[in-house]
Amino acid sequence: MCRWLAYSGTPIRLEELLYKPRYSLIDQSLHSRLGVETTNGDGFGVGWYPVEGPGEPALFRGVGPAWSDGNLRELARCTLSPLFLAHIRASTGTPVQQSNCHPFRYQNWLWLHNGSIRDFARLKRDLILAVDPELYPYLNGSTDSEVMFYLALTFGLRDRPVAAIERMAGLVESVGRAYGVPNPLQMTIATTDGDRTWCVRYSSEGHSRSLYYSTEISALHKLYPENKSLLRLSDETRLIVSEPLGELEGAWQPVPESSYGVIQKGDDELGHFEPAVP
Amino acid sequence: MCRWLAYSGTPIRLEELLYKPRYSLIDQSLHSRLGVETTNGDGFGVGWYPVEGPGEPALFRGVGPAWSDGNLRELARCTLSPLFLAHIRASTGTPVQQSNCHPFRYQNWLWLHNGSIRDFARLKRDLILAVDPELYPYLNGSTDSEVMFYLALTFGLRDRPVAAIERMAGLVESVGRAYGVPNPLQMTIATTDGDRTWCVRYSSEGHSRSLYYSTEISALHKLYPENKSLLRLSDETRLIVSEPLGELEGAWQPVPESSYGVIQKGDDELGHFEPAVP
Amino acid sequence: MCRWLAYSGTPIRLEELLYKPRYSLIDQSLHSRLGVETTNGDGFGVGWYPVEGPGEPALFRGVGPAWSDGNLRELARCTLSPLFLAHIRASTGTPVQQSNCHPFRYQNWLWLHNGSIRDFARLKRDLILAVDPELYPYLNGSTDSEVMFYLALTFGLRDRPVAAIERMAGLVESVGRAYGVPNPLQMTIATTDGDRTWCVRYSSEGHSRSLYYSTEISALHKLYPENKSLLRLSDETRLIVSEPLGELEGAWQPVPESSYGVIQKGDDELGHFEPAVP
Amino acid sequence: MCRWLAYSGTPIRLEELLYKPRYSLIDQSLHSRLGVETTNGDGFGVGWYPVEGPGEPALFRGVGPAWSDGNLRELARCTLSPLFLAHIRASTGTPVQQSNCHPFRYQNWLWLHNGSIRDFARLKRDLILAVDPELYPYLNGSTDSEVMFYLALTFGLRDRPVAAIERMAGLVESVGRAYGVPNPLQMTIATTDGDRTWCVRYSSEGHSRSLYYSTEISALHKLYPENKSLLRLSDETRLIVSEPLGELEGAWQPVPESSYGVIQKGDDELGHFEPAVP
Repeated sequence: MCRWLAYSGTPIRLEELLYKPRYSLIDQSLHSRLGVETTNGDGFGVGWYPVEGPGEPALFRGVGPAWSDGNLRELARCTLSPLFLAHIRASTGTPVQQSNCHPFRYQNWLWLHNGSIRDFARLKRDLILAVDPELYPYLNGSTDSEVMFYLALTFGLRDRPVAAIERMAGLVESVGRAYGVPNPLQMTIATTDGDRTWCVRYSSEGHSRSLYYSTEISALHKLYPENKSLLRLSDETRLIVSEPLGELEGAWQPVPESSYGVIQKGDDELGHFEPAVP
Repeated sequence: MCRWLAYSGTPIRLEELLYKPRYSLIDQSLHSRLGVETTNGDGFGVGWYPVEGPGEPALFRGVGPAWSDGNLRELARCTLSPLFLAHIRASTGTPVQQSNCHPFRYQNWLWLHNGSIRDFARLKRDLILAVDPELYPYLNGSTDSEVMFYLALTFGLRDRPVAAIERMAGLVESVGRAYGVPNPLQMTIATTDGDRTWCVRYSSEGHSRSLYYSTEISALHKLYPENKSLLRLSDETRLIVSEPLGELEGAWQPVPESSYGVIQKGDDELGHFEPAVP
Repeated sequence: MCRWLAYSGTPIRLEELLYKPRYSLIDQSLHSRLGVETTNGDGFGVGWYPVEGPGEPALFRGVGPAWSDGNLRELARCTLSPLFLAHIRASTGTPVQQSNCHPFRYQNWLWLHNGSIRDFARLKRDLILAVDPELYPYLNGSTDSEVMFYLALTFGLRDRPVAAIERMAGLVESVGRAYGVPNPLQMTIATTDGDRTWCVRYSSEGHSRSLYYSTEISALHKLYPENKSLLRLSDETRLIVSEPLGELEGAWQPVPESSYGVIQKGDDELGHFEPAVP
Repeated sequence: MCRWLAYSGTPIRLEELLYKPRYSLIDQSLHSRLGVETTNGDGFGVGWYPVEGPGEPALFRGVGPAWSDGNLRELARCTLSPLFLAHIRASTGTPVQQSNCHPFRYQNWLWLHNGSIRDFARLKRDLILAVDPELYPYLNGSTDSEVMFYLALTFGLRDRPVAAIERMAGLVESVGRAYGVPNPLQMTIATTDGDRTWCVRYSSEGHSRSLYYSTEISALHKLYPENKSLLRLSDETRLIVSEPLGELEGAWQPVPESSYGVIQKGDDELGHFEPAVP
């Protein structure tokens, strides 16, 4: 089971969330508490947008354990960003290689995923065939997660994100059913165009991997009272995480089953997620 | 441009061919003489059959340069084999990752390739669709070379190897033509089931990458007069190489354009290679 | 905290102990039960002697997690050895790099270690100065464990192994005391010349990392009743492990505090270990 | 033989010099023209100071070939710096590992080197002993280059840089003579505190590796007429390189034998370099 976070708000250094909190993402990679696998040492990745504006995000991905990667530590120390996604991977079978590390990028979009498509090796060919042939050449790796991204792009992610993800989920479930695979889809995902961020918590069996959001910026202030760099965070600042960072009561709200959320300027949204056969 | 060799005959230690000769494969990875690229530092691989008999071959593949890989040196020193393939990669664009390193393995078969399918990113989807759906899940990497292998398997490699490779080449050329790609196929390949080894030299433009075979065992004796371990080589011993090892006049014969060869017990074969639309 | 094993006896495939048992070494690297660190993903190594006799052992070492290393799996499947050491590393601070992976090799000797020299960064220079200048150039990495090996070699490991290790331990403790470091040494070690294997369990505070030996070959037979390849193990076969493999009652004996053991033809030895100022 | 560059002046993106010029550093790593080794695939590194001011520089180092490192490409695209050093390594024998990649860092200082200490394995112990015991624990790798850095720090690099480097060179030569090593030192080096940059070209035999400096900013403008981002470079901007980038006549001046240079605000300096026994 992977771990991830999505940050959006006042620009901060990546290390503020990757390394500093108790139960930081790096700490979780060594000792996860809520996950299925106890170790997440099968690669990692960070995708971030520059302070200057959306544009194409930058990626840093590695195949070793995140906890011992000196380059990640340097990068996290010197990189400031208003919007970034980070992911720590525990492989569910596909090779540990950079092209399989999240987040995945297409133009100005990033995508990451925790969970799996059950029996993916059997379903893969049918799913791949549904990817827009124009997009097909951009598939670089061999994970279910990347195929899910390109299916969502195929189904209109850039125009109507939630509907596109619902069609992707609907396709996975209908192909799964055709092959007799019970409960084919398990996912929490985050995707962003550099401006808004969408997250989804869903699984075919209605028992999804955990997902939390920070209720409000005051929660973060309580989490890190001694951290002066956080005092200046705007009210728009929001954090989505697969597992809480820190132990402060009341700081984290679980994302409900079968839900999506949108992090954006102004009011955020939370709605019901329903797979739709494309 | 990659470099490779295929050895078949009396069991020898891998290092005898990977490290010891002048212009050994490792030396070539640093300073190639006949190739297009001057450096082959994008990964490597060795596949070998145990002395006890065919069975499933073992693989060792790495993503760094072969010349500085300490594990390869150890392995080559202590591994004895009657039949092995070795490959040094210069990427033509696909990622440097272990799943893209040759040789590729399927059950008791190994496959390696030097060359490329031109405009592979555009042709890939159509080629993938022609792979037997039963075999599709075994595709692990993202190279043209691996797709060629699974197409050949689809077309009967295990039963009629040369005909299957001809059909694979025919398909690549016909898909290439459909997309307006001139001269789509460039290849030298070697494939083996652990008993016999097939090699092919072919390119759509009739100007293929180099390929040589050792004319007879006496040639090897002349190459390494001081190498006592080679004195005991059987008359069946044969070496196929992308570029000659050593400089001895008369030791190496070029494989003609549009040809295949079969290394086997008894007389070897050499024949005309002709792509066939499947 | 690292994990290790030392095998000696009837030649077996490495995979029989690295992968197959419940709580195998690879399994322990993901989920250790008795250790301090819960994850051992900072590199690994195997050193083995060929079936043909002692000679120089071969090494295979990697910097990624052992559990996802495809090359280790291949090697373990096809390598047969009568004497091998294997180690899974959890770094105590020094870099994750191949030259820091155990076992270390000098000529026909191998050495591995679990534990640490406390405050090694401060003590290192004085310890290094005590290494024989003839041996100094062979130090390749930056671990305390390798320095302990070269100190033992300096103090006569090749002639009187136990006495040499006692002098190494005595030096570490006396240098530690000079710098005001409490309880400077914590170790379980194994070292072998390809014929005999020595193991030691010792710590300055008298509370050492765990170490076990297989009482007798019948214990292994009980451990793996269905494993036919183990039925042929000789009575001389012995296994030393940092943590038991499998759960069979009575199969494993703890090595007592401050003890050394010698695995050899004929009767094995067990004795008191006492650091001696060199 | 390694390749390196040192940039100082108007903040630019790293990619402007690492990737874009003809004969860029990355291009040189594949096809060097003036070097001894034809391939530089044994690791690389970049050290840069942030735009906000000196402080501690950031490091990014890798052990694979620079030309295929996706993370380096991303980093170079999104990192802006007024002062950075970059290095491509061809090992002269020490292991390919991150702790051996240049530049080396100590507090706010960076150091890189092309060349070698001849017979370093034999001389190393005596040289190490001359390193200030307070600095000794910061030695992380096993290269001659890092030992040279810590010797220079020992001899006062932070106060009188040129004199300290002269004493380092003098020590290396006197230890070399004591061991009967002819012409023990070969070096071009660059070191910086984030404000000024010092470079040295020296060898015991008076036949040093190549080193060039950009004569004036107008030279760079001529080099990249179409590169608008370079039009805004200040007159203080200066580039030191082991091998010219681009082919423009008159753009590059060789640093004379046995010389040092200082890049700083106001007039730069060029002087005679003379090893001094410490």
